[in-house]
Amino acid sequence: MTQPQPIHTTHIPGRVRVLTGAKPTADLHVGNYFGAIRPAIEASHDPAKEVILMCVDWHGLTDRAKILEPGKFSASLLATYLTMGFSLENNMVILQSEIPEIPEMAWYLSCVSAVGLLERAHAYKDALGSGKEPTVGLFNYPILMASDIVTFDAQVVPVGKDQSQHLEYASDMVKLFNNAVGRPVLFEPKAEIQPTPLLIGIDGERKMSKSYGNHVPLFAPKKEIEKKIKEIKTDSKGLDDPKDPESCAVFQIMKSFGSKEAIAYMEERLRQGTGYGYGHAKKDLIDEHERVFGSKRELYEHYLNSPRELAQVLAPSHQRARTIAATVRQRVRDALSLGIL
Amino acid sequence: MTQPQPIHTTHIPGRVRVLTGAKPTADLHVGNYFGAIRPAIEASHDPAKEVILMCVDWHGLTDRAKILEPGKFSASLLATYLTMGFSLENNMVILQSEIPEIPEMAWYLSCVSAVGLLERAHAYKDALGSGKEPTVGLFNYPILMASDIVTFDAQVVPVGKDQSQHLEYASDMVKLFNNAVGRPVLFEPKAEIQPTPLLIGIDGERKMSKSYGNHVPLFAPKKEIEKKIKEIKTDSKGLDDPKDPESCAVFQIMKSFGSKEAIAYMEERLRQGTGYGYGHAKKDLIDEHERVFGSKRELYEHYLNSPRELAQVLAPSHQRARTIAATVRQRVRDALSLGIL
Repeated sequence: MTQPQPIHTTHIPGRVRVLTGAKPTADLHVGNYFGAIRPAIEASHDPAKEVILMCVDWHGLTDRAKILEPGKFSASLLATYLTMGFSLENNMVILQSEIPEIPEMAWYLSCVSAVGLLERAHAYKDALGSGKEPTVGLFNYPILMASDIVTFDAQVVPVGKDQSQHLEYASDMVKLFNNAVGRPVLFEPKAEIQPTPLLIGIDGERKMSKSYGNHVPLFAPKKEIEKKIKEIKTDSKGLDDPKDPESCAVFQIMKSFGSKEAIAYMEERLRQGTGYGYGHAKKDLIDEHERVFGSKRELYEHYLNSPRELAQVLAPSHQRARTIAATVRQRVRDALSLGIL
Repeated sequence: MTQPQPIHTTHIPGRVRVLTGAKPTADLHVGNYFGAIRPAIEASHDPAKEVILMCVDWHGLTDRAKILEPGKFSASLLATYLTMGFSLENNMVILQSEIPEIPEMAWYLSCVSAVGLLERAHAYKDALGSGKEPTVGLFNYPILMASDIVTFDAQVVPVGKDQSQHLEYASDMVKLFNNAVGRPVLFEPKAEIQPTPLLIGIDGERKMSKSYGNHVPLFAPKKEIEKKIKEIKTDSKGLDDPKDPESCAVFQIMKSFGSKEAIAYMEERLRQGTGYGYGHAKKDLIDEHERVFGSKRELYEHYLNSPRELAQVLAPSHQRARTIAATVRQRVRDALSLGIL
């Protein structure tokens, strides 16, 4: 059942506002690029979309033992999106902790949400199951996530299947809030359930992941990239044997970031086999990695080492994001008759 | 066990910062004045204290069915403190919902607090016991309250016994946070457990309370005050009988707000009895009420009807409060390396 939406929204006619959250994490790798970074960058070039790419550092604080990590890795995440070509024209790249409206809006949502709702969240139950004592932050995670969404009048939120319940919660909270105040104040978002494309790691067995150590970094020194790619596990086919690209981790990784031409070339050569061994394929992968990422290593490091410039480049994003957030916040405060200043 | 306190605090040498929260509620009455308003006003005239009197409207939102109420009653609460002589010189009267740093700080505290801590809160367990489905806001109440305190580097928080556990929680959260970031960032508050002085209602039986309807309002029309006071239940002693002030509701109510002289006069006349019946006492009580509150009805209504002026009078309070809050917030964000702007 859809509710009437608020009349005065902050949307731009003809553009759908899409919100994507990205957790700051150390050492972004090709798997992250393939699964999350590239899709968001592509969306930023779609003239029918207004994309807000938000580095959700506040969400990263919920594990007390790792509370100092998000602050360390935010700049790297932001720099990666910029370096790899996220278009800031009519889109935004922002840092969650620069938007104080979000935790305020989270308080309002918490006041219409039942404790039982959060207790039934799959992600929370999984965390409980792991035996760690959960923090209140972890428990409140779906509230903060809903607040991310409603604070920006987000219309579409692309999420993996594992996050679809959180999106349902966000819709529930919007309805609960609008009902409590008796008028449509918050905008109800739509989830866009994404397939979660898996990229194989260099062990040729498991999903590429930093925690398995089977990843190929994006902007590590060239030597390190070479070493990682040379370690990719392959079968024992000989130099001249025809090889199956689909079961070849080298090719799978090439497919995740390479140009059409580079992908087609490797695919053909592997299938033919003659004179093209895994060593050749790895060499081609190293070259393509260098072309796509290595050539931008300097730009990436420039952003990373000039926090002031990074901030400056992102200032218009934050300005626009806060204008939207302030408008939505005011709608809520008016509905609740809060404030005197 | 006390921890080292943060070195750069926002305190004024020679003045102890005292934080008092007051919930916005309809129709403030003499019982509220006696129990909460007068003590805070007196503290505001103590040169050894810097008092922050905060109308905690956000705390009032946790009951979904009454979510529209706090916004309606904040102005009345703020106007009452001002009208009755709260000194703004070196003190502050503020509205919680004007301080966006508070919910942000609440998020940080939530990330170091265990869910079990909140589950063990007496007030929450009582609410569960009442059978109502609690909101997340109600569950998170102690986090927001701790945030109120730490956001202002409050040193002393006067609370009733029912709130002492929440103060312990605030201290716990300060320790947890400081431990998590490895240095003293938040200031640990001290609770000052207050006796909760009870004032008898006009039924002569129960505590004065709006919910019992046995209250004497502060600024209601004079006719209504007269009616309420005339309804005060007394015993059947005759005009000339000596009467016991301690068991006389008229005298108890007089004691809660009257001048020393008015109290002493009524006490003496009641004890003597001769020519001083309960009707006379009620008449004296009406006069004293008119002198103390009635004479200020116009000023109170002026504030109430001029929200802009109320805001203007309180602007320096909010300005100073936000300066403190911004300083503390920055300490926390520096410790977590958050933000890029």
